[in-house]
Amino acid sequence: MRETSQPETERSNQLRARRLGIDTRDEAVVFMRSDCHVCRSEGLKTHARVELTSGGRSVVATLYHVDGDLIRQDEAALSEAACDVLGVDEGDMIEAAHPRQVESLSRVRGKVHGQRFDETALRAIISDIVAKAYSDIQLSSFITACAARPLDFDEIVALTGAMLDAGDRLNWPGRSVVVDKHCVGGLPGNRTTPIVVAIATACGLVMPKTSSRAITSPAGTADTMEALAPVDLDLAAIQRVVQKEGGCIAWGGAVHLSPADDTLIRVERALNLDSESQLVASVLSKKIAAGSTHVVLDIPVGPTAKVRSVAAADLLAAMLADVAHAFGVEVAIVKTDGRQPVGRGIGPALEARDVLSVLQGEAGAPSDLRERALRLAGVLLELGGAAATGDGGELASRTLDEGKAWEKFQRICEAQGGMRRPPRADHHRPVLAAGNGLVSTIDNRRLASVAKLAGAPDAKAAGLELHVKIGTPVEKDQPVYTVHAETQGELDYALAYVAANADIVGLLSQ
Amino acid sequence: MRETSQPETERSNQLRARRLGIDTRDEAVVFMRSDCHVCRSEGLKTHARVELTSGGRSVVATLYHVDGDLIRQDEAALSEAACDVLGVDEGDMIEAAHPRQVESLSRVRGKVHGQRFDETALRAIISDIVAKAYSDIQLSSFITACAARPLDFDEIVALTGAMLDAGDRLNWPGRSVVVDKHCVGGLPGNRTTPIVVAIATACGLVMPKTSSRAITSPAGTADTMEALAPVDLDLAAIQRVVQKEGGCIAWGGAVHLSPADDTLIRVERALNLDSESQLVASVLSKKIAAGSTHVVLDIPVGPTAKVRSVAAADLLAAMLADVAHAFGVEVAIVKTDGRQPVGRGIGPALEARDVLSVLQGEAGAPSDLRERALRLAGVLLELGGAAATGDGGELASRTLDEGKAWEKFQRICEAQGGMRRPPRADHHRPVLAAGNGLVSTIDNRRLASVAKLAGAPDAKAAGLELHVKIGTPVEKDQPVYTVHAETQGELDYALAYVAANADIVGLLSQ
Repeated sequence: MRETSQPETERSNQLRARRLGIDTRDEAVVFMRSDCHVCRSEGLKTHARVELTSGGRSVVATLYHVDGDLIRQDEAALSEAACDVLGVDEGDMIEAAHPRQVESLSRVRGKVHGQRFDETALRAIISDIVAKAYSDIQLSSFITACAARPLDFDEIVALTGAMLDAGDRLNWPGRSVVVDKHCVGGLPGNRTTPIVVAIATACGLVMPKTSSRAITSPAGTADTMEALAPVDLDLAAIQRVVQKEGGCIAWGGAVHLSPADDTLIRVERALNLDSESQLVASVLSKKIAAGSTHVVLDIPVGPTAKVRSVAAADLLAAMLADVAHAFGVEVAIVKTDGRQPVGRGIGPALEARDVLSVLQGEAGAPSDLRERALRLAGVLLELGGAAATGDGGELASRTLDEGKAWEKFQRICEAQGGMRRPPRADHHRPVLAAGNGLVSTIDNRRLASVAKLAGAPDAKAAGLELHVKIGTPVEKDQPVYTVHAETQGELDYALAYVAANADIVGLLSQ
Repeated sequence: MRETSQPETERSNQLRARRLGIDTRDEAVVFMRSDCHVCRSEGLKTHARVELTSGGRSVVATLYHVDGDLIRQDEAALSEAACDVLGVDEGDMIEAAHPRQVESLSRVRGKVHGQRFDETALRAIISDIVAKAYSDIQLSSFITACAARPLDFDEIVALTGAMLDAGDRLNWPGRSVVVDKHCVGGLPGNRTTPIVVAIATACGLVMPKTSSRAITSPAGTADTMEALAPVDLDLAAIQRVVQKEGGCIAWGGAVHLSPADDTLIRVERALNLDSESQLVASVLSKKIAAGSTHVVLDIPVGPTAKVRSVAAADLLAAMLADVAHAFGVEVAIVKTDGRQPVGRGIGPALEARDVLSVLQGEAGAPSDLRERALRLAGVLLELGGAAATGDGGELASRTLDEGKAWEKFQRICEAQGGMRRPPRADHHRPVLAAGNGLVSTIDNRRLASVAKLAGAPDAKAAGLELHVKIGTPVEKDQPVYTVHAETQGELDYALAYVAANADIVGLLSQ
């Protein structure tokens, strides 16, 4: 079949861009008058997806109709994210039209109904996501489908490869060994990375570390590190810092090492959903893109950690190791105690203080954080060839205790733009023990909720400081933790949750 | 554990409402200055969910930050939907705060990971959806989870009950038999409902028919009927029309018979996803809420229909019948030929014309639409006790042929607010046969895409007119169908798709 003649290619779907200062994070949104010539001629309804084009660049945005005088009929108001992608400013002309059919969505529907993804499907999906062709509704469906119909090994390899190829790569010419570490989250306060990077680079290893911001936790390593130094380094800055100091601790999202991941993380966060396949692809695509050849993976195991049993940890470890091998990367897995938070602080600045006290060798530094960092650094030193098998732990301790790691850490912070003092919160209130007893349980998930309700990680100084560990004896009205917030509203909100959850820290009566 | 003192309950999170005329359909959206006192004191970030309260009413909205002069620091701009729910107008004071934790989301996550829904979970989810506590991202996850982890019988009964209880009910005191029909979509142009209602009510049955608008098709029955008469009847209007004429054909969304369904349908449409469990719960919750006791279900079966095999139809039929029985409703299932579109028109007004020609007994009326309507009406007359077993078909034919159905239909239209002439499109172009041959296949799904790209169902006159059936001999350059559109842009868009899909109507060369 064919139509009788080609449709007119001459169109006048031009509108003048307006910037109303609307901040939608990375979501492209456009506001157009329902009675404008484009909506009328194209039949574009509110909630429709619209392709905006200007100067050879284009973006697919969600359309909201405006009735009334907010904008004129020949104008389109763009969210800041849409302006950035298009590179347009107030007054520039843009063209609006129906978007091309997003073919890869049929593969998402296929997955929902039980079909496997092949490599072509995942490449198409990730490429469309990076091009912002997926709406939030469609992103949510992809993420949910991957969690409900867990990906098999080949699918995870294909997803990792697709996420990797959608972004930039770091290269380290002349370096056959580039090390990295990653913790499969779920454990508040487990901020070993800055310490491990300082030890490894002080021992001569190359460690260009990129970290993520929090997904569902009160702080990611990038959030914590940002309380100590700038982390928004571009590719050139990372190359420069690593060239100079052998390592860095940068936010992965500021470079485009795996650009789909940041979009997926925003939606995963809204769903509080973090599937194994997304986790593996997310972790490894960033490590491989950073040029890593040898990676230590820390998997905390505990009843309220992300990984709840040794069996689940072993399955995840095997999947991570197998997928890594498919890309020629060596991994060492370290299962750690995930029964309770690490260190004292939970939240970016409070965790940063713990890191500093370990690096500076303070007498009161949290010993659990120190021990975990030394264990991981020891394995990494051996994996990367800086220490003989069995000698890594001893080398790591010496490097920390002699102050070499602290010295190196300060140099890295300076190279990243200058060291900062972590901020302190204006509002805090202690939560008191209801009776006498021994601390028997600490609910990581609900404790994380308290810190998040208090404003972490966006409010850097917010979170909480834990005064007890499992096994600590407490007396009635003794402070067990202190909530920190930058505003009274957030403090109230966190305390309302505390009041409704009296058993976050469980006591065994004596 | 307890906090040392109760948080202050005195808050001043007041902002003045602005209406900027922003039409987001049923989605609640609020724009606030990032530097306003509420965002600062509550730590509310862009994309956060915010609970807005005014005069005892509340709604949870998605927040977008505004930087700049669009609104003042003491103002909040609300989408029209948010204004409607709150009942506020320009200048009214509203309060904004963190929303209560949406507890039912943890049950959605449980489903994603393979847990069953129990009745409590589904009641909580549906109740939160009706209260607009779910964002689009969260709605999409619920819908995707239900499709990827198909609900079992008990879950579908619970979902149906939850959707039913979330809305209004129609009661028909003194009527022990109230009939209904429903077609499990997927077949363009299958618009038997207005004809069946006319026949059934002309024969004395009570049939308060509520229909939906299109989910993924170019027209729902409500869209088609709206080309002939008003369908936005409230409960009182439905009662009045049915009291007077014995039946109606109203849009279910204008009453709140199953209010969650309309929200779910909007998101399903964006995903082009329509799961069996949602389908069963959606159909039956509305029938039961309308007070129906006896229901005929039409399931078209064909390779490109929604149900593709007799086996799949039998499974779906059994699920529909079993769930209906759980609510004391009798159903009769009629499997029909779903290999090709019914009638000639696809799109609201074009389908309405086919309905009129059958009711008026025109010589050229589409015989397939007539035969299907008579078959369903016959089964319904027997199920409802208006005809003895075996006599239903004959009574249906006589009622149609003697003009009693047409007369009744006009009276129903008048009672609903007055009969209308279906509109005609300004733009049309025929699609021509590429060669000589016999029509061997018609791809319902892609044909529906053409009609939707042309603007159906929102553009009432848009869609297409099919000039052939399977088996029709055609010659090169003979029109096989004609695309209708209300705007040139939509016509072009549909024709571009036609050009890329030359085999929608398949020919067998002779």
